[in-house]
Amino acid sequence: MSSYVAPMKDMMFVLTELAGLEKVAALPGYEEASTDVVEAILDESAKFTGGVLAPLNWTGDQEGVTWTDKSVTMPKGFKEAYAQFVDNGWNALSGNPEHGGQGLPKVVSAAVQEMWKSANMSFSLCPLLTLGAIEALELAGTDEQKAMYLPNMVSGKWTGTMNITEPQAGSDLAAIRSRAVPQGDGTYRIFGQKIFITYGDHDMAENTIHLVLARTPDAPEGVKGISLFVVPKFLVNADGTPGARNDVYCVSTEHKLGIHASPTCVMVHGDNGGSIGTLVGKENEGLKYMFVMMNAARFAVGLEGLAITERAYQHAVSYARDRVQGRAIEGSPAPVEIIRHPDIRRMLMLMRSHAEAMRALAYSVAAAHDAAACHPDAAERAQNQAFVDLMIPVVKGWSTETGNAMSYLGVQVHGGMGFIEETGAAQFMRDARITTIYEGTTGIQANDLMGRKIAREGGATIKVVVEAMRQTQKDVAAQAGPAFAALASALGRGIDAVTQATDFIVANYSKDVRTVAAGAVPFLQLMGVVSGGWMMARAALVAQGKLAGGDTDPFYPAKIATARFYADHVMTAAPGLALEVVQGGASALELDESMF
Amino acid sequence: MSSYVAPMKDMMFVLTELAGLEKVAALPGYEEASTDVVEAILDESAKFTGGVLAPLNWTGDQEGVTWTDKSVTMPKGFKEAYAQFVDNGWNALSGNPEHGGQGLPKVVSAAVQEMWKSANMSFSLCPLLTLGAIEALELAGTDEQKAMYLPNMVSGKWTGTMNITEPQAGSDLAAIRSRAVPQGDGTYRIFGQKIFITYGDHDMAENTIHLVLARTPDAPEGVKGISLFVVPKFLVNADGTPGARNDVYCVSTEHKLGIHASPTCVMVHGDNGGSIGTLVGKENEGLKYMFVMMNAARFAVGLEGLAITERAYQHAVSYARDRVQGRAIEGSPAPVEIIRHPDIRRMLMLMRSHAEAMRALAYSVAAAHDAAACHPDAAERAQNQAFVDLMIPVVKGWSTETGNAMSYLGVQVHGGMGFIEETGAAQFMRDARITTIYEGTTGIQANDLMGRKIAREGGATIKVVVEAMRQTQKDVAAQAGPAFAALASALGRGIDAVTQATDFIVANYSKDVRTVAAGAVPFLQLMGVVSGGWMMARAALVAQGKLAGGDTDPFYPAKIATARFYADHVMTAAPGLALEVVQGGASALELDESMF
Repeated sequence: MSSYVAPMKDMMFVLTELAGLEKVAALPGYEEASTDVVEAILDESAKFTGGVLAPLNWTGDQEGVTWTDKSVTMPKGFKEAYAQFVDNGWNALSGNPEHGGQGLPKVVSAAVQEMWKSANMSFSLCPLLTLGAIEALELAGTDEQKAMYLPNMVSGKWTGTMNITEPQAGSDLAAIRSRAVPQGDGTYRIFGQKIFITYGDHDMAENTIHLVLARTPDAPEGVKGISLFVVPKFLVNADGTPGARNDVYCVSTEHKLGIHASPTCVMVHGDNGGSIGTLVGKENEGLKYMFVMMNAARFAVGLEGLAITERAYQHAVSYARDRVQGRAIEGSPAPVEIIRHPDIRRMLMLMRSHAEAMRALAYSVAAAHDAAACHPDAAERAQNQAFVDLMIPVVKGWSTETGNAMSYLGVQVHGGMGFIEETGAAQFMRDARITTIYEGTTGIQANDLMGRKIAREGGATIKVVVEAMRQTQKDVAAQAGPAFAALASALGRGIDAVTQATDFIVANYSKDVRTVAAGAVPFLQLMGVVSGGWMMARAALVAQGKLAGGDTDPFYPAKIATARFYADHVMTAAPGLALEVVQGGASALELDESMF
Repeated sequence: MSSYVAPMKDMMFVLTELAGLEKVAALPGYEEASTDVVEAILDESAKFTGGVLAPLNWTGDQEGVTWTDKSVTMPKGFKEAYAQFVDNGWNALSGNPEHGGQGLPKVVSAAVQEMWKSANMSFSLCPLLTLGAIEALELAGTDEQKAMYLPNMVSGKWTGTMNITEPQAGSDLAAIRSRAVPQGDGTYRIFGQKIFITYGDHDMAENTIHLVLARTPDAPEGVKGISLFVVPKFLVNADGTPGARNDVYCVSTEHKLGIHASPTCVMVHGDNGGSIGTLVGKENEGLKYMFVMMNAARFAVGLEGLAITERAYQHAVSYARDRVQGRAIEGSPAPVEIIRHPDIRRMLMLMRSHAEAMRALAYSVAAAHDAAACHPDAAERAQNQAFVDLMIPVVKGWSTETGNAMSYLGVQVHGGMGFIEETGAAQFMRDARITTIYEGTTGIQANDLMGRKIAREGGATIKVVVEAMRQTQKDVAAQAGPAFAALASALGRGIDAVTQATDFIVANYSKDVRTVAAGAVPFLQLMGVVSGGWMMARAALVAQGKLAGGDTDPFYPAKIATARFYADHVMTAAPGLALEVVQGGASALELDESMF
């Protein structure tokens, strides 16, 4: 099985040159995140993920999880790797220092999490869920709840879950039916079945803390009657140690296409009198807290699209360098390594350029998140938050769709061997498949982008972003040479396409929401493609500056070549996507339902 | 698990209105293929595939094949289904009447085979390989070989395989090393290992006839030294019955991403003195015969892309009709079936319109194949053959890439349930994944299209096809109404894109083949998209004619709506694809190999 080598150089380039790590380190609270410290952290993370997590990716997939007697046993090696993960402090990286966290900014944890996800996506879902649960308790928990749970969750000694979905309530949380009955002592007893619960049970930690959505007896119908509860697997003793087993059990695990080493559990609360939990925040406001957490989770799932692209790319490059097959199309004395075939090269460049574009966008959004959280100036905070809100569905939707397309190409590069499971390329494609679905499907991301993030505010934020893109385009156009000419032309067409589609959305959304919404996913795709191109253009400008300054690192010409490839092969789709948005809505809906 | 209902109405529409079934039935030898007879055959095939093959698709996937003691056992039910398949005469449908076949034209067998493949792709690979082996023996076998093998192969009593690939010789057949040593009695002893051998061993038939590529002792190096041999699993007695076991064995089967019920075998010839075979055709001309067979096999694999799209579409529609989740975006008193959500509708329309476009193209190519084979006029034969040769890589490459993209969408329509294997949607995606690889990867199809089929003849054939497309575009533009205006505009842009890219290829291919070849796959994609749009436009014109004639069948407005959707959402990609071809070659190759 192939190894994973964290792309340190590109990560540091994006952090320092595109995401503005120095500016983040100047924010109050993030002073420790100097470039040197961050590089040292990433170096350690690269060793841990490459050495410990990556080798378990394939074995975990093949062995899968084992369910017996209402408990899940993880594949070989996961328990030990998790212990090391906790001991090394990785889980606490972004945690609040009040509860033992290291308080590093999101732009740094994003890079570290990319490594977790590239190395072993199944493993990475455990801390992803724990971090989400921590965020919920930080946001709305009482001091008592925080003291009881957070230190052990921040360290990773205890893990967390989100008990949200029910069979009839997937994307539609209004349909949640689980019941929470107050016991008069400040606790509730919870009854109900939850499905698709990631790491709902496992043997890597001594306790699992479930955040559960349920309805109190007199709750109003629909989304306004849902409350959030914290329900530990083992009730917590007065001294903080795990005590009696709570009445929440994993009754089965799913047989899935991918992420076989991540237990996806059916959880039953209350087969024996009710699981005992306490209310988090206010009654009936559970969904509000959930949505805050969800933004973080959506960003993290977007990182999965990037991470799996990077891993699939490394795997494909390694094969393409080794595999000798066929003569060169222009003629060659002997068969050549397939990396020399033009179409193999084109596929590898698609994977590479997409990984770079997604990384630049994701880290830039993470840096804006840090500024939105900590900037001393309120207007700066608001502006950054607006950018984050606009871009979260793009990072989530576009990066995960791209991760699927790129891991598909990774299989293709391998030819027949790609279809054989032992080769490992197919696993990336199988694992990627869930990313466009969980934490909100691509359709849901696209509706969020089009409706809440654009139409509702008349396109105010996106217009600011488009202006920034136009400035980059002008800077690119001012550079000499064919690469920058190609970039300027492609970016110009791309920005025009975004503008055309945005104007259409703003003008028509409230008048004819169904027709406009039929173009939501093409619009999200367009935003991703063009935002990625914007990032690649920014990267090319930095690289050009370095070269002009006499830097001879081949990284810089490679960055410009990759940006140009992206302009020539990815940005070309932009005008067609805009046409789908502005012209295609009606025909998507025209066919009578009976004719399907 | 979902059922499969053959799309009889669209099949008959395409056969009679677009592929010209009546004209095919007027060709000498195909007189029996009247519309009534064909419809009756398809009706029977629909019953057999829906009732017998489709229910084994999911169980076959889950059980997989079993390998023990150098033999393969098929999943439960396959042996019985195959016996019924043979008894009903399905294997003999397109076979030569001299050997017991029914001699039906390819346009009819294409429709029947689409059903096999939709119902159960793993099963369908057995007759696919048998038909290929029959074709090789028909083409180049001696009378004795034909008499010995063909009657039992045409009936399906014996099955066939292609023993082509070796570990070092995948796409590159020049690297084949298997040896064939003449015994002085007209037979040869074969030694070598063959991999990826579909249905190399199984328990559904009493004998398996391997067509094997190998080198004789004094053969020249490379592709000019490869000969074709026929090597039965059981040597054939003088009375035609299977006799002694030959020295060719399946030593293992592959653990694959999909088509789990199709045994993919490693075959070893000659561990005990050599497998005994006879030469097919002339020594050192094996590759020539292989390429003739390969065209048929490529067409058949193209049908798999169509077939799996149709099945995934039916599966997704069925779920989208039943699954209630979320309110309508424009507001609704209660949650609605998800087929009412605009993005679900868009995905279903993508699947539907692609299935219709691929079907129309594939059947039209099949009809041209029939005319190329049987037309009394030599010029007609040549013209049809040129069209077939041009379009085979498009049918293969574009339909299989599309089948992957559409089965991916089928999973997406199912949301979280799509990722659960028991839902069945994921199987279509897994099964589809091999189709862009075997019988020549998409890259190989694209090089064939661009090099052998276009550049080599200066674009002569494609120019004729483009002229036909332009005529259709004019006819469409002459119709009233917004659907036809949209179709005319999209088709016009698409044809211009094909013309632009073709002119570039013809002008530059010999000058700079590497750069041009880097655009081969985008060009193939462009040809597929626009050829599909051409077919949809032809279908819309026929439908409009029916409506103008007073026909009130809702099939016709649906066909026009589907064609318009295809114009609005698929054809929109054409100009961008052409740009990739004409501008993008250099940047695909620019990055230094050391930088990957």
